[in-house]
Amino acid sequence: MKITIFFGSKSDAPVMKKAALVLKRFGVDYDAFVISAHRAGELLAEKVREAETSGTEVFIAGAGLSAALPGVIASLTVLPVVGVPLDAGKVAGFDSLLSVVQMPKQIPVASVGLDNAENAAWLALEILAVKYPDLRQKLLSFRKDLQDSMRRDLNSRILDE
Amino acid sequence: MKITIFFGSKSDAPVMKKAALVLKRFGVDYDAFVISAHRAGELLAEKVREAETSGTEVFIAGAGLSAALPGVIASLTVLPVVGVPLDAGKVAGFDSLLSVVQMPKQIPVASVGLDNAENAAWLALEILAVKYPDLRQKLLSFRKDLQDSMRRDLNSRILDE
Amino acid sequence: MKITIFFGSKSDAPVMKKAALVLKRFGVDYDAFVISAHRAGELLAEKVREAETSGTEVFIAGAGLSAALPGVIASLTVLPVVGVPLDAGKVAGFDSLLSVVQMPKQIPVASVGLDNAENAAWLALEILAVKYPDLRQKLLSFRKDLQDSMRRDLNSRILDE
Amino acid sequence: MKITIFFGSKSDAPVMKKAALVLKRFGVDYDAFVISAHRAGELLAEKVREAETSGTEVFIAGAGLSAALPGVIASLTVLPVVGVPLDAGKVAGFDSLLSVVQMPKQIPVASVGLDNAENAAWLALEILAVKYPDLRQKLLSFRKDLQDSMRRDLNSRILDE
Amino acid sequence: MKITIFFGSKSDAPVMKKAALVLKRFGVDYDAFVISAHRAGELLAEKVREAETSGTEVFIAGAGLSAALPGVIASLTVLPVVGVPLDAGKVAGFDSLLSVVQMPKQIPVASVGLDNAENAAWLALEILAVKYPDLRQKLLSFRKDLQDSMRRDLNSRILDE
Amino acid sequence: MKITIFFGSKSDAPVMKKAALVLKRFGVDYDAFVISAHRAGELLAEKVREAETSGTEVFIAGAGLSAALPGVIASLTVLPVVGVPLDAGKVAGFDSLLSVVQMPKQIPVASVGLDNAENAAWLALEILAVKYPDLRQKLLSFRKDLQDSMRRDLNSRILDE
Amino acid sequence: MKITIFFGSKSDAPVMKKAALVLKRFGVDYDAFVISAHRAGELLAEKVREAETSGTEVFIAGAGLSAALPGVIASLTVLPVVGVPLDAGKVAGFDSLLSVVQMPKQIPVASVGLDNAENAAWLALEILAVKYPDLRQKLLSFRKDLQDSMRRDLNSRILDE
Amino acid sequence: MKITIFFGSKSDAPVMKKAALVLKRFGVDYDAFVISAHRAGELLAEKVREAETSGTEVFIAGAGLSAALPGVIASLTVLPVVGVPLDAGKVAGFDSLLSVVQMPKQIPVASVGLDNAENAAWLALEILAVKYPDLRQKLLSFRKDLQDSMRRDLNSRILDE
Repeated sequence: MKITIFFGSKSDAPVMKKAALVLKRFGVDYDAFVISAHRAGELLAEKVREAETSGTEVFIAGAGLSAALPGVIASLTVLPVVGVPLDAGKVAGFDSLLSVVQMPKQIPVASVGLDNAENAAWLALEILAVKYPDLRQKLLSFRKDLQDSMRRDLNSRILDE
Repeated sequence: MKITIFFGSKSDAPVMKKAALVLKRFGVDYDAFVISAHRAGELLAEKVREAETSGTEVFIAGAGLSAALPGVIASLTVLPVVGVPLDAGKVAGFDSLLSVVQMPKQIPVASVGLDNAENAAWLALEILAVKYPDLRQKLLSFRKDLQDSMRRDLNSRILDE
Repeated sequence: MKITIFFGSKSDAPVMKKAALVLKRFGVDYDAFVISAHRAGELLAEKVREAETSGTEVFIAGAGLSAALPGVIASLTVLPVVGVPLDAGKVAGFDSLLSVVQMPKQIPVASVGLDNAENAAWLALEILAVKYPDLRQKLLSFRKDLQDSMRRDLNSRILDE
Repeated sequence: MKITIFFGSKSDAPVMKKAALVLKRFGVDYDAFVISAHRAGELLAEKVREAETSGTEVFIAGAGLSAALPGVIASLTVLPVVGVPLDAGKVAGFDSLLSVVQMPKQIPVASVGLDNAENAAWLALEILAVKYPDLRQKLLSFRKDLQDSMRRDLNSRILDE
Repeated sequence: MKITIFFGSKSDAPVMKKAALVLKRFGVDYDAFVISAHRAGELLAEKVREAETSGTEVFIAGAGLSAALPGVIASLTVLPVVGVPLDAGKVAGFDSLLSVVQMPKQIPVASVGLDNAENAAWLALEILAVKYPDLRQKLLSFRKDLQDSMRRDLNSRILDE
Repeated sequence: MKITIFFGSKSDAPVMKKAALVLKRFGVDYDAFVISAHRAGELLAEKVREAETSGTEVFIAGAGLSAALPGVIASLTVLPVVGVPLDAGKVAGFDSLLSVVQMPKQIPVASVGLDNAENAAWLALEILAVKYPDLRQKLLSFRKDLQDSMRRDLNSRILDE
Repeated sequence: MKITIFFGSKSDAPVMKKAALVLKRFGVDYDAFVISAHRAGELLAEKVREAETSGTEVFIAGAGLSAALPGVIASLTVLPVVGVPLDAGKVAGFDSLLSVVQMPKQIPVASVGLDNAENAAWLALEILAVKYPDLRQKLLSFRKDLQDSMRRDLNSRILDE
Repeated sequence: MKITIFFGSKSDAPVMKKAALVLKRFGVDYDAFVISAHRAGELLAEKVREAETSGTEVFIAGAGLSAALPGVIASLTVLPVVGVPLDAGKVAGFDSLLSVVQMPKQIPVASVGLDNAENAAWLALEILAVKYPDLRQKLLSFRKDLQDSMRRDLNSRILDE
């Protein structure tokens, strides 16, 4: 079970790290590379091929602005690519969101929400869990805990505090 | 290998059918149900459970307007849910697009583009292919054919016609 | 006369508290629960049923991002549901606004403005006042005071200060 | 039980009629007036007062463009005002949607979705049903029928047709 | 020569003051009132009538959110109304901008840009200057000075500093 | 009393003609020229000067896309310029709307709504009416007729037809 | 003097042909290829290299949706790339517009307006004309003709027709 | 080899300076002038002519709000004009972005992304490099260095830090 994470710039690391933390929590191995699709296309192709060879089963890719990274990876592989549109602080984030989600036919990207790297990891885990029953059990058990904790924290007088 | 497709209204069938056609082409079995999350929540929960029991491994869910369907399914399962925002003809489609893609943490939906049911199927196939090597071979072979056909149809004088 | 307030996350409390303050001012009793529709759907259904049984007559529900909470509550009850789209700081708030307001036919939500929890309370009071003449008198008297205070504070030279 | 419907222009009648049809179905009496807030403010104030005197308990108001009508009615009454933003075909409908939903504090409008006059009626019925138990029963019974019809029309092979 | 300035809330004063400063600079008298169209419609009508009686020739009106104020004033007078959409910090300011500019036929508002109270004053001055030749001379002379100052400040090496 | 109308392209004539019809109705003389600010800037400057010399007191300017025309005219004159953003069928009309309304400080344009050439004429008439009492009487009398006709056409059963 | 035009799909040909017609008019040679960046990345790289070798000096690239084509070409060359965002009929065209224009630092694309293939050609001609004085003369002469024709077609009574 | 940079206001200098720094790095001479198209149109025309006479081969123009500057320059020259839409903090920057990019036919502007003055310089360099082979070599060599530095900084464990 391995996931490879790509993102376009070092400055995206604080957001993308949230994906890594979720993966770690479930003991899923990952690699992470800073590669801009627009600045180093060949290197990206090389790293995607290496990742496939070395057992990666899902890609996570985060990018801002005209966020070509997830789509370009999707064009290089038939492994699932989860795209994280990153908010670069202009046009209310619609640039990366639309660039990631509005992919042309036949080359899908699985988009999560703006800056929602955490959900990219959850989605990648769910994809792996289709194949790995143990991981599925862990996800089900997390969900149960989540519901239990919500029940504990309902706090019917919370607005009186 | 089975996929279950949900969508909110009969009128969505012409768009959602494009997903079914892709699945058929690759011999992947599917069920399709018209259920609105907002109008029949219990029925939806029942059908999601039945789908899981009977071997569904990925969900595809299409909805328009305030498109809660993919998210509600995602809250009921840890199987991957691919969401198709459908364009209901208002606010340029931003209503369903944002409703599908901007999910809260821990409950991911894999959003594809507006009305892009075809890509929902491609993404679902890629997810299944992580587990099923035969399907992976078929997807790789489709990609190769796609590139070959692009090469044949390059048509360097196309704008002179 | 009772109102039940739901919202998706503890971090929404400072905004939603403004609704509670308005209700308190008019002596209307309320309960408030933190429940995410996406993370704890069953618990939500349970709490909605309990609220109905224990005399709640209007619901107020606040949520951000893909804000399914008001719509899911609306699908579980025929009591009026007032939805408060909360601004999660992305896409200029259009995600929750459109998710709350663009409900499908037959399952209405009464949307107020972005982060405008205060108006959710005013609207809930107006709804209750259709039934309770005393409350109506209080609202009319508040409106009169509001107009009087505007008259006092007209301050024709305010821009010279 | 009476509802008064206002809208800004004769050309809005085909959309607003959908509200009337829902009200008729539940035997709720209504009046409907074409009055533009911007063109005939005094007449509007007069009609709002008359409506209140003659027993109206909820207002429905539809308007396009800079849709001031629902807000101006809300400023004239403490009865609940349900606003229907109408799509005038410009700026993707965001003009009336934002004008209706983004009301200032203390003067609430209950906004439904763009052109969704039908939901304005459903919401008005739910508001009346807080007071009138018979109507509440009818709404509950309609919801039950709706769920039954969804169950009948699930049609698991719909995409094969 | 007199102008009356209205705005919806005391908190708008710092922005609207910029209009007053421009008027002062050209010696044009003005009154300024804080009146919300939605909270005190009758008072507004009264003040508009008083303003007309006491010689006001142009109105300036600033409002945020669902900014009905300029339009309601326009419905009460045939004097020109200059509307200033104010940015209330939600939906990127599109709420007030669209509410002010998208007026229905026959009841015009002259919209300036978001928070651009200064330009509301400049526009009001240009409107007065159609009638008052002295003011026109002052405006022409200001324009000339503006061009001269631009010529002085061209600073061809500004980016080297 | 004279008004000069400019617009960027012959194809804008059907929309801009609505302004002319309003002016005619009130007996106000006008000239109309097709000049693109971007294609014939010098010619535009020449025509603006001629218009001023020959007695024009207000300009109306309509343009689509990046609608520079009203702003460029505003930079050439201190007469009031009423801008009509025209919908060229892209980006929901936000291009011309924002180009016309978001003018920089000191160079105001009075923007009306998208494609609302009729209101440009009404606004121009109101501006002229500050100076010409007869025109003001005509506008007041039109408003009275408008309100009378609204009263006649209230039609309380309109939705039953 | 040669230009190479790329676009993502055969269905884009009618819009992109407008670029070709402008180039023909000025006797500038061009090649045109249908290649999707997402479907045939290697083929694209190959064709870009061939184009450079065979003397292309400017690229024009049109694409819809998540329009990666211009950016990917820009990543493969230091020749200027003119991007034409194509309107695929969703989200008001903002998807391709933002994908083309919001490029990351160091890898520029020269974006023209939505569907404005004609301007892509004009811009490409202007770029070539920096190097080729004859072409510059032709462009200057076209501009002169354009201004002359505007002067001829001013038509001061056009709105009376 | 010379470039002339225009921008509308002194306050734009910190953003526009980024263009200058890129030009300096490649030894390309430039002039920079603060001229608002709307406030000093004649001066702008004069400076554009001077720039052409003194050997400028590409223009860079940055402006905010209704950003007419690049388009007006484009109307005065057939040299390429690179437009930089500047974010003035309103409407999420869509005002200047759409004003710069949505130019009418025949008068092209090469738009770069919002506040992306750096890319305006890179684009201007690419345009010059069509003519100047030495500059082209420098750009190719920069690209190679960029790719090498990306390879060095891949840092496969970056998210573990």
